[in-house]
Amino acid sequence: MSADNDNEQARKQLIDLAAQFYDQFELGEIPHMSVPTRTKNNIEYDEDEEVWVYGDRESTRSANSVRGARKLLKAVYTIEFLADQLEEDRSSTLRELYYLSESWDNDEAQFNDQDESNSMVEDLEIVSGVTREDFHMRPEESGATIMGPLHLREQTRRGEREIHCQEDVGEGGYQIPNNPDTIDFLDCDADFILAVETGGMRDRLVENGFDEEYNALIVHLKGQPARATRRITKRLHDELDLPVTVFTDGDPWSYRIYGSVAYGSIKSAHLSEYLATPEAKFIGIQPADIVEYELPTDPLSDSDINALESELEDPRFQTDYWEEQIELQLDIEKKSEQQSLASHGLDFVTDTYLPERLDDMGVL
Amino acid sequence: MSADNDNEQARKQLIDLAAQFYDQFELGEIPHMSVPTRTKNNIEYDEDEEVWVYGDRESTRSANSVRGARKLLKAVYTIEFLADQLEEDRSSTLRELYYLSESWDNDEAQFNDQDESNSMVEDLEIVSGVTREDFHMRPEESGATIMGPLHLREQTRRGEREIHCQEDVGEGGYQIPNNPDTIDFLDCDADFILAVETGGMRDRLVENGFDEEYNALIVHLKGQPARATRRITKRLHDELDLPVTVFTDGDPWSYRIYGSVAYGSIKSAHLSEYLATPEAKFIGIQPADIVEYELPTDPLSDSDINALESELEDPRFQTDYWEEQIELQLDIEKKSEQQSLASHGLDFVTDTYLPERLDDMGVL
Repeated sequence: MSADNDNEQARKQLIDLAAQFYDQFELGEIPHMSVPTRTKNNIEYDEDEEVWVYGDRESTRSANSVRGARKLLKAVYTIEFLADQLEEDRSSTLRELYYLSESWDNDEAQFNDQDESNSMVEDLEIVSGVTREDFHMRPEESGATIMGPLHLREQTRRGEREIHCQEDVGEGGYQIPNNPDTIDFLDCDADFILAVETGGMRDRLVENGFDEEYNALIVHLKGQPARATRRITKRLHDELDLPVTVFTDGDPWSYRIYGSVAYGSIKSAHLSEYLATPEAKFIGIQPADIVEYELPTDPLSDSDINALESELEDPRFQTDYWEEQIELQLDIEKKSEQQSLASHGLDFVTDTYLPERLDDMGVL
Repeated sequence: MSADNDNEQARKQLIDLAAQFYDQFELGEIPHMSVPTRTKNNIEYDEDEEVWVYGDRESTRSANSVRGARKLLKAVYTIEFLADQLEEDRSSTLRELYYLSESWDNDEAQFNDQDESNSMVEDLEIVSGVTREDFHMRPEESGATIMGPLHLREQTRRGEREIHCQEDVGEGGYQIPNNPDTIDFLDCDADFILAVETGGMRDRLVENGFDEEYNALIVHLKGQPARATRRITKRLHDELDLPVTVFTDGDPWSYRIYGSVAYGSIKSAHLSEYLATPEAKFIGIQPADIVEYELPTDPLSDSDINALESELEDPRFQTDYWEEQIELQLDIEKKSEQQSLASHGLDFVTDTYLPERLDDMGVL
């Protein structure tokens, strides 16, 4: 589908939302809008899809109170802004939307703070079924990169750009745009995706030529990955049938990074089908690796221990594999960073650790 | 100079350092090494060069104590590691160095924590006069990007890459490598550099085609800029004679971002000549802009006020211009983000604000 058609489609869904209020008026109803409650209590793990989704609880914004009426007014102004933005094929950041509301002619429609405008965009995303990217709302930062045997075409505002993610980029790699749905994959010689948490490890793999030797697409996660990074990872998996492996530090916070790539997060549970790759596998650092490879460690802090214990209760981690690993970590009371593999030399990660793990996992 | 020659030069300076200890032994002296004291008390503002430099105070690491001897032992092991790394034309991160020390045969030479190994590399940088980049020590993250009419050649480990920073990149722009001294500038149609603090504003300028319309090189600072970003900015200024303008939020923390681009920082005062661009000018958001353009504001917090007051004492900000702006801000007790310009519409920044400011500053 062309960008114009995409814009038109998203625009139509937004206007339908606003049209609903008119229909309600005509029926003599008080205008209202229902959205799923976005709290931890209303998140369910969908066993079939293996992702997080919202449950059945809904909150209703209704014009039967001044507060509710004001919410709907803000929704209508935001819908108008987004519809205009799509018509003009422009985009903006969440922060710009907040500031821009100061120029709206109705003071009551202006946002009081950025939490309010952010949450309005989330509401509209959920109710309309259109993603924020399709509203052309950009995040403040994207920032992640790809290096590997992938040839792609990005549709930019300045025309099409064909880029090979090894041959046409510097050592920094290809910068993933805010909306990776502007990308077509032309040709790919990769055998799998290696999504890497830290910049230091990403640079190590690139320096050691791991992407070339193992036909790997190295995707830098940069800590908790941006939506754009998760989206392109999912598309690469779905469209090119590439196995996804996730390589992080060996601590509970990093397991959550894996969890958000694989299963989605509470904040974006309405987008799990768009962002999550349930088939993604965890390479490590596993607690078992800390023992097997005698890695340098730090002791677990109290908050590490709490996080591990809460992961044992988390449906995403209720598998034999994760229970064994987490219990082991609570037992050894240690954690290791991915760069601690350097204690066996700078090539250990690419010559020994990753090949062994990928072989164990059946990826190589 | 070729990369090989650079490596050889850096290696020689490191080995000379170690050779010094042998000379001291031969002279019957206790081995020692003197480094400038790296505290705020020993930082001086060089009025001529307009950058921060270290003063005359020195600390001496001497083998006349067990603690001092251990320091020198660690220095020698680190020098050997760095010299080998340069000989093999490899690189590593500061964190890898810390972990790698666990593989050294002498337990006493191993680092106790990463602060110790970081500070050792800084010592060696200062004493040898070789920069960390020339030791091939990488930062954990680089991450900033360039968009604009610049054609460059990057020397990567995989060969040369010629990249035009508008025509050969996606909307994300060209990713600055960790060591921008691997770049040659081939051709540049830019009239000036616009260094931008936030990702949201960088994306706004690119979407609005500001780089095309005004022949600007848009450099994303990503908050406090990495060394690589400051280095390439300085090189673009020195080698291509491009004026540098810095565009940040209007608060004391952002003025420090400007200060680090223009005058260097305490942490890297030994590198000011390599990293700082004293000719860089501040575009805004100026406190005067907050008043003139009636921007949306937040109140100053206590820590904002303290930071502004300490800037009044900071030699980098002791100019009529900055005193006036800072006094004004303390007076109005408000601050504004750069994206608050969106309160006048999404094009206000590129159609009105920046052209007016660049004209005032004599850049356009």
